Amino acid sequence: MEKVNVGILGFGTVGAGTAEALLLNKDIIRGRVGAEIVIKKIADLDIESDRAVAIDPEVLTTNVQDVIDDPHIDIVVELIGGIEAPKKFILEALKKGKHVVTANKALLAECGAEIYPVAEEQGVRLAFEASVGGGIPIIKALKEGLAANKTDTIMGILNGTSNYILTRMAQKGIPYEGAVQEAIQLGYAEDPPTLDVDGTDAAHKLAILISLAYGVPVSFDDIYREGIDKVTPDDIRFGMEFGYCLKLLAVAKNLGDKLEARVHPVMIPADHILANVNEVYNAIYLEGDFAGPSLYYGLGAGRRPTGSAVASDIIDIAREIRCGIRTQMPPLAHVLPIWEKVSIQPIESLQTAYYFRFSAVDKPGVLSKISGILGAHEISISAVIQKGREINSSVPIVMLTHEAKESNVKKALIELIRLDVLTDETVLIRVEEKGVDLK
Amino acid sequence: MEKVNVGILGFGTVGAGTAEALLLNKDIIRGRVGAEIVIKKIADLDIESDRAVAIDPEVLTTNVQDVIDDPHIDIVVELIGGIEAPKKFILEALKKGKHVVTANKALLAECGAEIYPVAEEQGVRLAFEASVGGGIPIIKALKEGLAANKTDTIMGILNGTSNYILTRMAQKGIPYEGAVQEAIQLGYAEDPPTLDVDGTDAAHKLAILISLAYGVPVSFDDIYREGIDKVTPDDIRFGMEFGYCLKLLAVAKNLGDKLEARVHPVMIPADHILANVNEVYNAIYLEGDFAGPSLYYGLGAGRRPTGSAVASDIIDIAREIRCGIRTQMPPLAHVLPIWEKVSIQPIESLQTAYYFRFSAVDKPGVLSKISGILGAHEISISAVIQKGREINSSVPIVMLTHEAKESNVKKALIELIRLDVLTDETVLIRVEEKGVDLK
Repeated sequence: MEKVNVGILGFGTVGAGTAEALLLNKDIIRGRVGAEIVIKKIADLDIESDRAVAIDPEVLTTNVQDVIDDPHIDIVVELIGGIEAPKKFILEALKKGKHVVTANKALLAECGAEIYPVAEEQGVRLAFEASVGGGIPIIKALKEGLAANKTDTIMGILNGTSNYILTRMAQKGIPYEGAVQEAIQLGYAEDPPTLDVDGTDAAHKLAILISLAYGVPVSFDDIYREGIDKVTPDDIRFGMEFGYCLKLLAVAKNLGDKLEARVHPVMIPADHILANVNEVYNAIYLEGDFAGPSLYYGLGAGRRPTGSAVASDIIDIAREIRCGIRTQMPPLAHVLPIWEKVSIQPIESLQTAYYFRFSAVDKPGVLSKISGILGAHEISISAVIQKGREINSSVPIVMLTHEAKESNVKKALIELIRLDVLTDETVLIRVEEKGVDLK
Repeated sequence: MEKVNVGILGFGTVGAGTAEALLLNKDIIRGRVGAEIVIKKIADLDIESDRAVAIDPEVLTTNVQDVIDDPHIDIVVELIGGIEAPKKFILEALKKGKHVVTANKALLAECGAEIYPVAEEQGVRLAFEASVGGGIPIIKALKEGLAANKTDTIMGILNGTSNYILTRMAQKGIPYEGAVQEAIQLGYAEDPPTLDVDGTDAAHKLAILISLAYGVPVSFDDIYREGIDKVTPDDIRFGMEFGYCLKLLAVAKNLGDKLEARVHPVMIPADHILANVNEVYNAIYLEGDFAGPSLYYGLGAGRRPTGSAVASDIIDIAREIRCGIRTQMPPLAHVLPIWEKVSIQPIESLQTAYYFRFSAVDKPGVLSKISGILGAHEISISAVIQKGREINSSVPIVMLTHEAKESNVKKALIELIRLDVLTDETVLIRVEEKGVDLK
């Protein structure tokens, strides 16, 4: 039986999970591929720690070149993380004609445009199922399963850490800091969890999903991002009273000639299928013009789920090697991109509904003043909650608006500051009104 | 640019949806494939009706052989439905070396074992993404995305018609017959909706999912099936009081050396992700040993979703034709099956929790008699609702049990009939206790 040799760069959590999947399910995978997948080399600076995987010590090396230069290795698997070092290694491996598998979302989102053409020129595969959604085969769904669709909407809960924090805040009413500490203690968050909670990680993943939907890398910096660190249990509770659930969403919408692409806290209807995605789970909701709405749900991180995704890429490539063929599928699965360039509209051009929480002095006429300024900027109110209880000698005025222009909202908020009735910064959370449509 | 010629057998709902996807998204698909997909022939007995697709009349034929015998057609797409005729056409097309795409779940579930080997011998693809879950790319997820996993559990809402009926019964408290009439009026059900509501359609789809998970066709008749026609709004409501939601589920579990495989109404915890799948939506919940739990949700039927799935298979094959290669992926995506044969345990061997609704005479001591007989058969009760209100001079006694043996349950129910305290048939609904585990 034919053998396919794999070399792994990085023996951390994902590297160990990948090795574990390939070893523990060796028989299943051999049956599916029709060839044996052999882990020929694993490079890591630390080759002493026990990863609870039965790897022959001779397979381990501290020298990355032992993997990249090995002429018998068919597939190089990059699981180091970071940007500069893995970029160098991946480009080197591709140029040597090796297929490359990576889980590195930051690298692909920020430098994909430099890497994809090299894979295409070399006629080798560059696969990255593990870069988005952990064990959920969402990359394959976009590249292949939904390939007959124009993708109209992508909405994702793409970061398990921040979803865990928001879930705990909603369920227990605890403040952000407390939920973060809990997540750190349970190993769901790093300390500090910066890239997870500030929207960067979700934006990296959204950039990858967009590039797969339209066939062209996007400019990562054009994706608006806002984190969850200012979310309070109060806003989660007020949202519930309006029938909404607060999630950190990555949203992309096809506007015909340009895209909306943004990551920020969002109020979604409590009966939206995404509202039920809790704890560390991830989910990606897509709307295609033929498939309609669909959702992909599962564990977005962790040793075994991510190992499952990396191994699925290895299996895909190994199936081709077994058959002696090369699909020459470009990394983004478009021989010709749908758009030459994806242009992302600035956040100021967004039109959506809003949730506001104003902290106002407790005097008659305040609501009328606020709504007057909103009205002057074409922002119309759909619901208001005004509660008597004072918080720090001010009262919260909570409202939902109909669809309005973000640029008008920003102007109105500045004017409101000048009014001298607000006692604290206004909380603004964007709302996605639309639930699931039945077509 | 290279052309890939497609011939379609059957120009009904799915045929029209497929043609529509290929035509409306022609540019997107050409960009993704790197070749042009041409609909060269469509065969149907009715070539007069308007399908609202811009097809050149010369493409239409009433003679199936015009498609199968055309040497320029690369891919034959079977969308006729039924068993004998499509089987003949598919086998003929395969033997002529053509790739075949089909949406025919009944044919694959009942006769797959006759068809798959022919595709393998001929080295051509036999693809059937549209056979399960409509627009949801679940076949690809099992064949490829989760290929590194041992599949432990499959639980699916695989029939949109019955899910719509149960959703309406739960939301409106209306009886089965009323919900069926509504589904028929909305075009979600045929009149009568036999195969949808009796579990047969869901069992066909479950058979296909099992065969993909283990690499070998299953004996369709070994899958236990029970429909929803005996479900009452009372049982749905009592279930809710216990914290459960009633769904028609297709369930398969890996017991190590054999499988559980069954389709019947199930009480699932109201916070299970499947409990939120309503209306005509389908969803497939999988547990793999590496990916963990995952869910795939979307529209399981309809012209456009099913067209999306059929077109995705055509695109897959066209990508290979463009590259001048053949993966020789066997239809079930296993070069060697995991099991030689899948053995399905009889329903009598099932161990699960149960929901019972007894209709009993309103006399003291009845509950004690019932629980005594249950206890004698090692069936222990976890919760009881006994309401005073009489229905037809009898009172409902509703209970949940801990895990028990189905064979014991059947024996206990027979003994209870002899007791002479029951006034009507006992309602038995199996319960799935386990929600989503975080690993």
